[in-house]
Amino acid sequence: MSKGKETKRHIVTQAATLFNQRGFEGTSLAALMEATGLEKGGIYRHFDSKEAIAVEAFDYAWRSASDTRLNDLDGISNSVDRLKKFIANFVERSPAVAGGCPMFNTAVDNDDGNPVLRARARKALRGWLNYLTSTIKTGIEMGEIRKGVNAKKTATLIISSLEGALIISRLDKDREALRSVQSHLEAYLEAELRLRGK
Amino acid sequence: MSKGKETKRHIVTQAATLFNQRGFEGTSLAALMEATGLEKGGIYRHFDSKEAIAVEAFDYAWRSASDTRLNDLDGISNSVDRLKKFIANFVERSPAVAGGCPMFNTAVDNDDGNPVLRARARKALRGWLNYLTSTIKTGIEMGEIRKGVNAKKTATLIISSLEGALIISRLDKDREALRSVQSHLEAYLEAELRLRGK
Repeated sequence: MSKGKETKRHIVTQAATLFNQRGFEGTSLAALMEATGLEKGGIYRHFDSKEAIAVEAFDYAWRSASDTRLNDLDGISNSVDRLKKFIANFVERSPAVAGGCPMFNTAVDNDDGNPVLRARARKALRGWLNYLTSTIKTGIEMGEIRKGVNAKKTATLIISSLEGALIISRLDKDREALRSVQSHLEAYLEAELRLRGK
Repeated sequence: MSKGKETKRHIVTQAATLFNQRGFEGTSLAALMEATGLEKGGIYRHFDSKEAIAVEAFDYAWRSASDTRLNDLDGISNSVDRLKKFIANFVERSPAVAGGCPMFNTAVDNDDGNPVLRARARKALRGWLNYLTSTIKTGIEMGEIRKGVNAKKTATLIISSLEGALIISRLDKDREALRSVQSHLEAYLEAELRLRGK
C-alpha cells in the first residue's frame, strides 16, 4: 500500500469510531486532528469535505458490523439455524468499530439531517433486509420453513427488535435487553417458522 | 404566566424540536437564536448553559411523547387490551415534538456523550418499562394474563421492537416496519399472554 493510501486508511479507521460515537455534527475537525495525529491540511489532502470522510467512515464501520454479524453463517445449511446464528452473532459479538450499530446510529443522526449519510444508512438497511428475506425464502423453497411465513415481515421484526434492544443495552450497559429479545426470537422461529423435524 | 416564564417556555418548546432532530452537539446557538427569535443574551438570561436548555427540552419532549402513547389507556380495564392500545398509540399517533422518539434519540446521541442527558434517557426508559411491567403483573393478578409470563422480558420486547421499527419507519418514511411489529406483538399477546376467554 502506498504511503498516501495508508494515511487515507488511517484517517478512515479513526474517523469511523468518532462518527459512530458522536454523530456527523458532533465530530469536529479538532477531534479528527487529535484522533489521527494529523493537521487540517494532512486530512483534507485526502478528502474533499467532512461529508466525504463521514461516508467512507460509514462504509468502513458498516463492513465491520456486517462481517461480525455474518460470521460463520456460510457453513450453516439449514435456514432456521442460520437465522438463529445471525441473531446470536448480533447479541454476543461486538463489531470492531465502537459506538453501537453504524446503520442505526447514522439513521437516528441523519433522519432529519445529512441526506447523503441518510441514503447510506438506507442502503445498508436494504442490504440487510434482503439478506434475511432471501434466507427465509430459500428456507421455504427447501421445505425447512412453513409456506405461509411472510419473509419480509419476519426480517423486519428481527432487525427492529435486535436494533432496539441494542440501544437499550448500550443505555443500560448490560446485555439483558438483547438476551430477552434473542430468547423471544428463537422461540418464535422454532414455533412459527421451522417445519417439524427440519 | 409572567412574561419571563412565557419566554422560557417558548425557548423550551422551540429547543425541544431542534435537539430532538439534530442532537445535542448538532444544535448550535445560532439555530436556537433563529428558532426562538431571541439574541444570545435573551436565551441565556433563562438558562445557565446549553445543557440546561437540553435537559428541559428533553423533559418537555418526553412528556409530549408519553402523553401521546398513554392516550386513552386509563379507560381500558383489561390489561392485554391496554397493552394493545399502547402499541396502537405508538404506531399510529405522532407526538407533538417532531423528530422521532426523544428517549431513543437521546440514548443514541449520548450513549458515548453527555452523561446528564444519558441519565435522563435512562430514567425515561425505566419509567416506561415499569409502566408496562406493572400492567402485565396486574393482569396476572387479575387472572387476565397467564401466570408463567415474564413481565419484564415482555415489556423489554415491546419497547425494543417498537422503537427499532420507529427508526426504520423514519428512515424509510413509511409505516410498514411499525405495522409489521404491531401485528407480530398483537398475535404474541393473544397467543402467549391472554388467558382464554378473558
